[in-house]
Amino acid sequence: MTRAVLPRALNAARDMPLESLKASRLRLSTHFKTPVSLSLDHRRHISAYGYTQAKALVYSQYGEPKDVLSLHTHSISPPASTSITLRMLTAPINPADINQVQGVYPSKPPMNTSLGTNVPSAVAGNEGAAEVVGLGGSVKSVAKGDWVIMKSSAMGTWRTHMQADENEVLKIDDKTGLTPLQVATVSVNPCTAYRMLKDFTSWDWGAGEWFIQNGANSGVGRAAIQLGKEWGLKSINVIRERPGWEELKKELEGLGATKVVTEEQLMSKGFKDMIKEWTNGGREPIKLGLNCVGGKNATAIAKVLGQGAHMITYGAMSKKPTELPTALLIFKEIVFEGFWVSKWGDRNPVEKKQTVDDVLRMTREGRFKDIPVEEVKWDWETKIEPLKEAVQGTLEGFRKGKSVFVFGKT
Amino acid sequence: MTRAVLPRALNAARDMPLESLKASRLRLSTHFKTPVSLSLDHRRHISAYGYTQAKALVYSQYGEPKDVLSLHTHSISPPASTSITLRMLTAPINPADINQVQGVYPSKPPMNTSLGTNVPSAVAGNEGAAEVVGLGGSVKSVAKGDWVIMKSSAMGTWRTHMQADENEVLKIDDKTGLTPLQVATVSVNPCTAYRMLKDFTSWDWGAGEWFIQNGANSGVGRAAIQLGKEWGLKSINVIRERPGWEELKKELEGLGATKVVTEEQLMSKGFKDMIKEWTNGGREPIKLGLNCVGGKNATAIAKVLGQGAHMITYGAMSKKPTELPTALLIFKEIVFEGFWVSKWGDRNPVEKKQTVDDVLRMTREGRFKDIPVEEVKWDWETKIEPLKEAVQGTLEGFRKGKSVFVFGKT
Repeated sequence: MTRAVLPRALNAARDMPLESLKASRLRLSTHFKTPVSLSLDHRRHISAYGYTQAKALVYSQYGEPKDVLSLHTHSISPPASTSITLRMLTAPINPADINQVQGVYPSKPPMNTSLGTNVPSAVAGNEGAAEVVGLGGSVKSVAKGDWVIMKSSAMGTWRTHMQADENEVLKIDDKTGLTPLQVATVSVNPCTAYRMLKDFTSWDWGAGEWFIQNGANSGVGRAAIQLGKEWGLKSINVIRERPGWEELKKELEGLGATKVVTEEQLMSKGFKDMIKEWTNGGREPIKLGLNCVGGKNATAIAKVLGQGAHMITYGAMSKKPTELPTALLIFKEIVFEGFWVSKWGDRNPVEKKQTVDDVLRMTREGRFKDIPVEEVKWDWETKIEPLKEAVQGTLEGFRKGKSVFVFGKT
Repeated sequence: MTRAVLPRALNAARDMPLESLKASRLRLSTHFKTPVSLSLDHRRHISAYGYTQAKALVYSQYGEPKDVLSLHTHSISPPASTSITLRMLTAPINPADINQVQGVYPSKPPMNTSLGTNVPSAVAGNEGAAEVVGLGGSVKSVAKGDWVIMKSSAMGTWRTHMQADENEVLKIDDKTGLTPLQVATVSVNPCTAYRMLKDFTSWDWGAGEWFIQNGANSGVGRAAIQLGKEWGLKSINVIRERPGWEELKKELEGLGATKVVTEEQLMSKGFKDMIKEWTNGGREPIKLGLNCVGGKNATAIAKVLGQGAHMITYGAMSKKPTELPTALLIFKEIVFEGFWVSKWGDRNPVEKKQTVDDVLRMTREGRFKDIPVEEVKWDWETKIEPLKEAVQGTLEGFRKGKSVFVFGKT
C-alpha cells in the first residue's frame, strides 16, 4: 500500500468496531515511522512481534465439504530468509477443489500440523490472488504490495493469509487496470483454454480454421471462444438447451463464437449436413474438439471431427465415460487426450507465467472478458457457515457462474 | 528366371496335360533364342505377341464375398515404358480385404473397366508378393526374377498376374533364404507391430520396459512379442481362455512373451496386484498398450497403463467400442490413438521398405518366425468356388491362422 491510499485505509479503520481495533493490537505509529508496508486492511492481524493472525478452511479427513471443513485460526510467524507473508485477495471455488476435499481428486495436498491443528490437516483451495504483505530478509523477486498467484496447485488458497517461499508464487508484473477477481481466475479456466488451443494442434494461424467444443458456456468454454477469436480461429459451440438459451447464444456470439448450437442439434441427424455446409463441404475440416461433458455428447463431437483431429477432454460434467467407436481411432485417426491444467502448470511454471501474463494483457486491453462470478465475502468476522454453504452450493450446482471468495477487511 | 533353373521348369512342363501346353501357345524356341525372361511356370499365358493371360477375383458391387466376387479372365498387354508385368506368388486374405469387398472399409479401390470387365470392377486383395516377369523398355529399378511387394494398398493382389508401374512396387533386395509366404505376409501384420512399438512411445531401449497387448495370438500380436523381445522390451500378453490355452501360452512364451494371461485374469480383481508385482510396484510402469479387441477388454488394459502411456487401437475384434473413463484421460494422461498400416504405408513408402527389409533380415537370421498360415492353392485351373470359400471362411473365422493364396502353375 502506498501513502496515497492511506486516507481510505484510515476511513476503514474509523468504521471498525472498537473490539476489532483492540483485538488487532494495531500500532499505527509503527506504520507511520517506517515505510508503509502492510495494508491497513490487514493491520488487525499483525501482532507486536510481527505475527500475522490468519484463518483457514481446513480438513483433516476426506468427505463432503459441509461435513469435513472447519475454520482454523492460527498465527503466522514473521517471514524469514526467502519466505513471504501473503494476504489472500480472492480465491475461486473450482469443482476440482471440492473433489480434492472429497478425496476423489488425484492431487492431494499433504496433511500436517504445521498450522497448529490438533490433527494433521490440509488447507482447501488451489487457485487465488494474493498481496505480498511481509518479506523475509533475502527475498529478491517480489516486493510488498505486489500481487501474486500460486505457482503450483495444492497450496491451499481458502484462507486469509499464508506463508510461502518466494519461489512458490508467480508475480503479476503489471497489475494496472486489473481487479483481484480477474487475476484470481486466470490460472485455471483461461489457462486451460489457452493451452488446449495452442498445444495439441498445429494451426494455420489466421486461416480461419475450426474447433468445436461442448460446455461452451463454462469458464473454459467462454475463454476458448474469446481466445479463438483473438487468434483467428472459428468455433462451433455446443450448449444445453435451457430456458433462455437463445439469449445465451447471443451472448456467446458477442464474445466471438462463430456458431452456437444446442446439444439437441448436435445429436440430431441433420448435424452432419450443418457441419458440411459450415466447413465448405469438409474442405475446412474441424481440427480440434474440446470436451468437458463426456457420454454421448462427446461421441457426437468426435464424429464430426476431421481426419487426424485431436479431441481433448478436460472435464466430465455428464459423469459418463466417452465411447470411442474404433473406426474413429483407426480410420479417422482421431487422437483422444486429456488436459489437466494443474499438472501442466506444475510442470511448466515458466509457460504458466507467460500464459497468465498474456491473458491478463488481453484483459487489460479489453479483449478478454471475465466470466460471470458470484462473489462470496470473507471478512475476519465471517463465520464458517456461509463459507461452507458457498462450497457446497458449487458442488450441488445451485450457484450461477463461478463462486469466488473475496477477502475483505481481514 | 536364369538358365540354371531351366531344367526344373522343363520338368514341370513335362508333367503338364497336353491341353494346357496347347492352350498356352508356348513357343519354347523364342525363349531359347533370346535371354530367358519369363518363368516357364508362367509360360502358358504368354501369347505370341507377348500378351499375358491372367485371372483376377473382381467385384463390381459391394457385398458378401461369396455373392459379389467373380473370377475374371483377361489379357495383359506387353509392358511398355516403365510398366512391369508381375506374376503373383502369394497373397494373404486379411480381414480388411474382406471389409473392402463389403464396402465397409474406408479405403476403396477405384472401379473401372480397364481389365475388360463388362461393368466397372475392382480387383480384391491388398497384400502380396510377386515375381517380376516382364519389363517395359525404361524400367530401371527391378529386373526379371526379382521379388516385389506392393508399395501401397488397394492395388488388387488376388489375381494371377498384374501390370504395374515400377514405382508401385517395393523390391525385396535380398530374397536369399526367404519364402514367398514370408515375403507376402510381412507388410501388414509385422509392419503394424513394428511401427506401433517404435513410433508412439519413447523407450529407454534395452531397459526392459513394459508393454501390454490383447489379441496376443493374432498375427500382429505374435509379431509384437518377437519384436519386443528383439528390442529388449517386456510384454504382457492377453489371450482368450480356450481349450488348450496353456499350450498357446507356452508357444507365445517360446516366441519371447514375458507374461501371458487370459482375458479372465485381465478382468479379475487381482489383476492390478499382479501388475504391481511384475512392474516393481509400478516403478517400471507400462508405457504402451496395443488393442485389437475393444470393449471391456480394452478398458481393462487402459486401466493398468502407467502415467502418460499411449494406447494404440488397430482392430476391434469384439466389435464393441472402447469406453474411456475420463480420469484415465485427464489424470492418468493416457493418449488413445489408432494405427492404420495401409495409410501409414501409403504415406511413408521409404519407411515401409526399411521396415519390411528389417523384418525380413530378422526372418532370414531365424529371429522372426512366420505366423501359422493356411495355404490356399490357386492354380490356373482352380475354379472360383474354393477361392471364395477361403475368403468367406476367413470372414466367418472358420479357418485357423491366416489364409494365404499360394499361386501355383498359372
